[in-house]
Amino acid sequence: MGSDERIPQLGVAMVGHSFMGAAHSQAWANAPRFFDLPLHPRMLVVAGRRPEAAAAAARKLGWEESETDWRKVLLRDDVDLVDVCTPGDTHCDIAVAALEAGKHVLCEKPLANSVAEAELMAATAERAAARGVRAMVGFTYRRVPAIALMRELVAEGRVGTVRQVRAQYLQDWIADEDAPMSWRLEKDKAGSGALGDIGAHVVDLAQFVTGERITGVSGLLETFVDERPLPGEAGALRGSAGEGRGKVTVDDAALFTARLSGGAVASFEATRFAYGRKNAIRLEVNGSAGSLAFDFEDMNVLHYYDATDDPRIAGFRRIYVTEPQHPYVGSWWPAGHGLGYEHGFVHQVVDLLRALGEDRQPEPSFADGLQVQRVLDAVERSSTAGSQWTEVPA
Amino acid sequence: MGSDERIPQLGVAMVGHSFMGAAHSQAWANAPRFFDLPLHPRMLVVAGRRPEAAAAAARKLGWEESETDWRKVLLRDDVDLVDVCTPGDTHCDIAVAALEAGKHVLCEKPLANSVAEAELMAATAERAAARGVRAMVGFTYRRVPAIALMRELVAEGRVGTVRQVRAQYLQDWIADEDAPMSWRLEKDKAGSGALGDIGAHVVDLAQFVTGERITGVSGLLETFVDERPLPGEAGALRGSAGEGRGKVTVDDAALFTARLSGGAVASFEATRFAYGRKNAIRLEVNGSAGSLAFDFEDMNVLHYYDATDDPRIAGFRRIYVTEPQHPYVGSWWPAGHGLGYEHGFVHQVVDLLRALGEDRQPEPSFADGLQVQRVLDAVERSSTAGSQWTEVPA
Amino acid sequence: MGSDERIPQLGVAMVGHSFMGAAHSQAWANAPRFFDLPLHPRMLVVAGRRPEAAAAAARKLGWEESETDWRKVLLRDDVDLVDVCTPGDTHCDIAVAALEAGKHVLCEKPLANSVAEAELMAATAERAAARGVRAMVGFTYRRVPAIALMRELVAEGRVGTVRQVRAQYLQDWIADEDAPMSWRLEKDKAGSGALGDIGAHVVDLAQFVTGERITGVSGLLETFVDERPLPGEAGALRGSAGEGRGKVTVDDAALFTARLSGGAVASFEATRFAYGRKNAIRLEVNGSAGSLAFDFEDMNVLHYYDATDDPRIAGFRRIYVTEPQHPYVGSWWPAGHGLGYEHGFVHQVVDLLRALGEDRQPEPSFADGLQVQRVLDAVERSSTAGSQWTEVPA
Amino acid sequence: MGSDERIPQLGVAMVGHSFMGAAHSQAWANAPRFFDLPLHPRMLVVAGRRPEAAAAAARKLGWEESETDWRKVLLRDDVDLVDVCTPGDTHCDIAVAALEAGKHVLCEKPLANSVAEAELMAATAERAAARGVRAMVGFTYRRVPAIALMRELVAEGRVGTVRQVRAQYLQDWIADEDAPMSWRLEKDKAGSGALGDIGAHVVDLAQFVTGERITGVSGLLETFVDERPLPGEAGALRGSAGEGRGKVTVDDAALFTARLSGGAVASFEATRFAYGRKNAIRLEVNGSAGSLAFDFEDMNVLHYYDATDDPRIAGFRRIYVTEPQHPYVGSWWPAGHGLGYEHGFVHQVVDLLRALGEDRQPEPSFADGLQVQRVLDAVERSSTAGSQWTEVPA
Repeated sequence: MGSDERIPQLGVAMVGHSFMGAAHSQAWANAPRFFDLPLHPRMLVVAGRRPEAAAAAARKLGWEESETDWRKVLLRDDVDLVDVCTPGDTHCDIAVAALEAGKHVLCEKPLANSVAEAELMAATAERAAARGVRAMVGFTYRRVPAIALMRELVAEGRVGTVRQVRAQYLQDWIADEDAPMSWRLEKDKAGSGALGDIGAHVVDLAQFVTGERITGVSGLLETFVDERPLPGEAGALRGSAGEGRGKVTVDDAALFTARLSGGAVASFEATRFAYGRKNAIRLEVNGSAGSLAFDFEDMNVLHYYDATDDPRIAGFRRIYVTEPQHPYVGSWWPAGHGLGYEHGFVHQVVDLLRALGEDRQPEPSFADGLQVQRVLDAVERSSTAGSQWTEVPA
Repeated sequence: MGSDERIPQLGVAMVGHSFMGAAHSQAWANAPRFFDLPLHPRMLVVAGRRPEAAAAAARKLGWEESETDWRKVLLRDDVDLVDVCTPGDTHCDIAVAALEAGKHVLCEKPLANSVAEAELMAATAERAAARGVRAMVGFTYRRVPAIALMRELVAEGRVGTVRQVRAQYLQDWIADEDAPMSWRLEKDKAGSGALGDIGAHVVDLAQFVTGERITGVSGLLETFVDERPLPGEAGALRGSAGEGRGKVTVDDAALFTARLSGGAVASFEATRFAYGRKNAIRLEVNGSAGSLAFDFEDMNVLHYYDATDDPRIAGFRRIYVTEPQHPYVGSWWPAGHGLGYEHGFVHQVVDLLRALGEDRQPEPSFADGLQVQRVLDAVERSSTAGSQWTEVPA
Repeated sequence: MGSDERIPQLGVAMVGHSFMGAAHSQAWANAPRFFDLPLHPRMLVVAGRRPEAAAAAARKLGWEESETDWRKVLLRDDVDLVDVCTPGDTHCDIAVAALEAGKHVLCEKPLANSVAEAELMAATAERAAARGVRAMVGFTYRRVPAIALMRELVAEGRVGTVRQVRAQYLQDWIADEDAPMSWRLEKDKAGSGALGDIGAHVVDLAQFVTGERITGVSGLLETFVDERPLPGEAGALRGSAGEGRGKVTVDDAALFTARLSGGAVASFEATRFAYGRKNAIRLEVNGSAGSLAFDFEDMNVLHYYDATDDPRIAGFRRIYVTEPQHPYVGSWWPAGHGLGYEHGFVHQVVDLLRALGEDRQPEPSFADGLQVQRVLDAVERSSTAGSQWTEVPA
Repeated sequence: MGSDERIPQLGVAMVGHSFMGAAHSQAWANAPRFFDLPLHPRMLVVAGRRPEAAAAAARKLGWEESETDWRKVLLRDDVDLVDVCTPGDTHCDIAVAALEAGKHVLCEKPLANSVAEAELMAATAERAAARGVRAMVGFTYRRVPAIALMRELVAEGRVGTVRQVRAQYLQDWIADEDAPMSWRLEKDKAGSGALGDIGAHVVDLAQFVTGERITGVSGLLETFVDERPLPGEAGALRGSAGEGRGKVTVDDAALFTARLSGGAVASFEATRFAYGRKNAIRLEVNGSAGSLAFDFEDMNVLHYYDATDDPRIAGFRRIYVTEPQHPYVGSWWPAGHGLGYEHGFVHQVVDLLRALGEDRQPEPSFADGLQVQRVLDAVERSSTAGSQWTEVPA
């Protein structure tokens, strides 16, 4: 679909096909329908452990074939890129193997569950790059048009020197203490809780939008509900109290303060316990010449305060980011027609394909993903050490 | 893509491939990727007058073939449905011919440029329905989840008896008086201006959400800028003032008051001159038990006031319409991830395919489209007659 | 209180002491505490029919004395100004008598219950002005800082030529059909319903902010609940249905379209049936160079769209109208500290005292009040005549 | 004014007459005009060092007399209460002397510039209380109706157990690095910067609204602009760089995380560098059954999310806190008419007079003020110690 014979093709294999797999599939399918691209993605094969599920996913999501062993897709000559959409504990194995097999890699965030893994991945990616093999980590929110515009305006100096950042990711989907146990609440599988799952996004966004690096943090992690009913029959059938319940071993909320390389101070928060906040990614930047503010629950809007305006008529401007002058937007619909969550994934594919077409490094790199991992790690260590200020290794 | 051999196919042909054609193509391509459907649409052929443009559109938008004569696609046995995305002055010819050829029809709004044409189309559709051939008009905003929820809540009696409706469609894309002339500003091509182009949407929405019919109106039409520069070289090259300028023959703004069949009074406004309002479809309903309010510039949100709440904690609830309990939403992403403009078109295709699969009349019917046309016509007649109250024929 | 011997005094008498009387008393008492004034108001006497109530009001609201016959206060030499806060059916008698007795008059809106009375008052005021005796009508919302700023920006040409006005006054205090009968719902006492009570405000505001006159209207009035329980024992004790209920003889909602003297078109609505809207005075102006929008439920904020801004960063600015550069605000608190409803009354007194001090006509004059009355009258006549367009006499 | 001979009088003396003095005067003058009170305040005397300024303040603000030596007002038998509105470095001397002289005391926040002074004041107040002499600290924002309602709803269990608090006080009045030096930026006079000036408010509010105590903190203070031009001629006349500039010795921004006695975690921020935020006191509470959110820039509104609502229609309710059921509101105007900044001061006086009339301790007490001081002190100590977690002494 959307194919044009005159454009070279890029064979894509995807590993994993649940939430992120569906979002990535949507991106691969839709990017060529709206954007002029130097490479045309061909959705060759999706890999998943259970054969029937993988086959159904291929059919539903538009992949030509399915496969149960991701290692086999690396052997295929027609596969040029591997898109890693599995849980975090398998990212390292798959991405490293793919890069070493000469395949470009797009890897979902967080890059890995540990700094050590992320370091291995970044080193592998750096070596691969020398051979023209590219790796990118999927911090897709960078491609929300309002956030991309926010970055542009900061880079142009519209807010001057950044002094303060306020970054929050607020959700409420496990605020109910009777919500069942899941692998996302177990440290050995998920790595961390709110911190890694959603905090990683706002760490990346704060660094992306300011163009600066977090250099140190003071963290505070908290688990509000430390035991939950096991899901399904297992939990329901067992009798006595305590039985049929699982132990939550990750953070429910993560708060931290930080300093950025350009001198700014920042506050961060990630929580899945803020009732009524469904997907509130909030980012505010205050600089020496103005401010910018964003909330994903109103994702097509950016608020901008220009401190050089006449005070009599100054005020935050509600920029409805749907004009042709705005990033990505002009390729979609006429002015005034807002985009949704999934469009960020399409833009991610567009940016990746353009970088590959021009043989340059796509962003964010695995090194960028590693840096986010180091920030999260420093937050955890600080939290364990009584919130002691903790430097983030460069 | 997304094909499943076990599901019967529906051969689709589309006529026209500009803005609406792109939106409809996106819908046909994406619906099967997210929704369980009784029929699988096959995007057979797109028709357009210029062969190269049609071929490029086919490639870009994902149609198997292109065609320059829409009449030829009606002769194809594999075409089961014709999707009419051309300007309004051709709707009648194409839709009537398609229905008479036994093809289902999805026709973009407005149904036609005149009541007479719309009557012919509705009558043809009614005859076709007796043979199991279905016709639907594309008032896609009905399928925005927040608006669909609004309809559900009114139908459940959550706001009681509807007493007042406030409906506005505000844009600003021709507010600049130096914006060039276009066919949309010529009455013989466009039928009317803001009234038919965007007013039609809020007329349909007000009737849809309330489940009532507009029975009478008092209208006021105004043209603010009655002459504009001709676009391109034609306008630029000619010398003297007045030359190189075209005459605007449609309304720039349309205001009217109305009564609904259930006893409510309503105010309507459609304008393309409200600077700063980009796509503000605003709909508010006040009933005997509560109120509902919507603005398309914040399309994933519905505001609901329940008058039975304790006054101490009563207030408009900002419902973020992204929960699995909300219409259409559960088939997309996890809770909290908003949709965009184009998703309404996907939902339209879903509703149409489900109606066809169950052999029932999809809504809105051509009769519904005719009713909207009659309202618009009554507004124009009232405006000409000094805003005199004008009944809308049933 | 706040007295300064060096400033000449102005003896004030107030007639009526319920809601408006309390608001005006607050204004007379507070104006000299914050503003430099050429005259110092002395709160001499409040008049009310019931002696005990009047005495209690004097004590509570800060008047030196009370009086039961308003005619007597006109005989006092120390009374320089009469402040009329009674219901509308007595405005004419009191104001005319006061002006003829050589007293300045501040008269609450609406100026009168009929055009005939308003004409008499305006004519009397004009004659009085020739003798240096001044009359002002109390459209206090003009003095909300955000609205005063809105007027300034329009007058400076910030929105260019005004093309459209959208004016609404939405309340919900009688939306409950079991709310009891009151004199405000009887035409012979209240003159009209929502139209005169709150519609008058938005008519005045639309004319004030644009600096233009409404020249013609098409109206639609509706009564949703035409019978209500009588209040108190009377209604409760009587037995059979229909007994114990009173007839509502005024409009519950008033909708009208209008044209302004400068060429703009406008829509107006006044209702007390919009559940959830408590005091939503909404005013939006769209001009050829920008837009302005206000809602009294967020009364310290004005929204301004400048169409000359770069489209990439254009958007409605949320001006928090609490800076020293904003009208009236600098006399109160440091920047950022919002005002409330009552402050408009203080500003009204300030503007009145300054006009008197400079021996010039305060605004709005009785002629302005008469003009509003004529608009309301034209709306009623149009409504009776099938919404027929009705000119407003100049 | 507003006097009633049947109500006992309370003689009031005020020390200091700038911003806070004006606000308090407004409160003493207006409280009896709207509220039924057990004691009628008589505004006897205002004290200030410069005789002319004090006399002018007395005249303007409505005090019977002025005085240059605050110690003399303590000697007057007719003075029952001393209202301390001076800068923080004099609070301790005046309040202690007044209490020891048997006068009730209302002392502006922050209670003192040091914990040691605050301890002395709290101890003095406790001894005075044993003699029926009362002391109260002026955290006036507790009396904003929306915040008072927030406290009521938390106390009723409407949000369940409090899990998270988000508290910010954002201003921008010194964001311009060329704004001149002032005593507020010198540590020896002001005690601290944003932390004590505005951070104190949100510390008090978070504790007030939750009914819990902050038990520990991790702080981060930052000064963005450490040198500023001296104000007036001094700075303007001197020549070379560095000359004519003063050293900023306080924090420009204060960030800290905290734990509350009931188990919640919290984030706090106070800054005067957030361009575009004029007086954004923001407070959000997330509990096990719902959430509440407030922003002083929209001060008549409280947002409430009830997690027990049906998810289909759940959403933050925008409660317009202007109904008779809401705290304080019913004494002012009919429903729907918002209050302003100064009304909180009136409510403070009302609460104080009622406590005195019933011979009970008004809140917040000096002990409460001391507790806030201890939190601020712990934040400073933590900040100096690398953000190390620091317990707040009980």
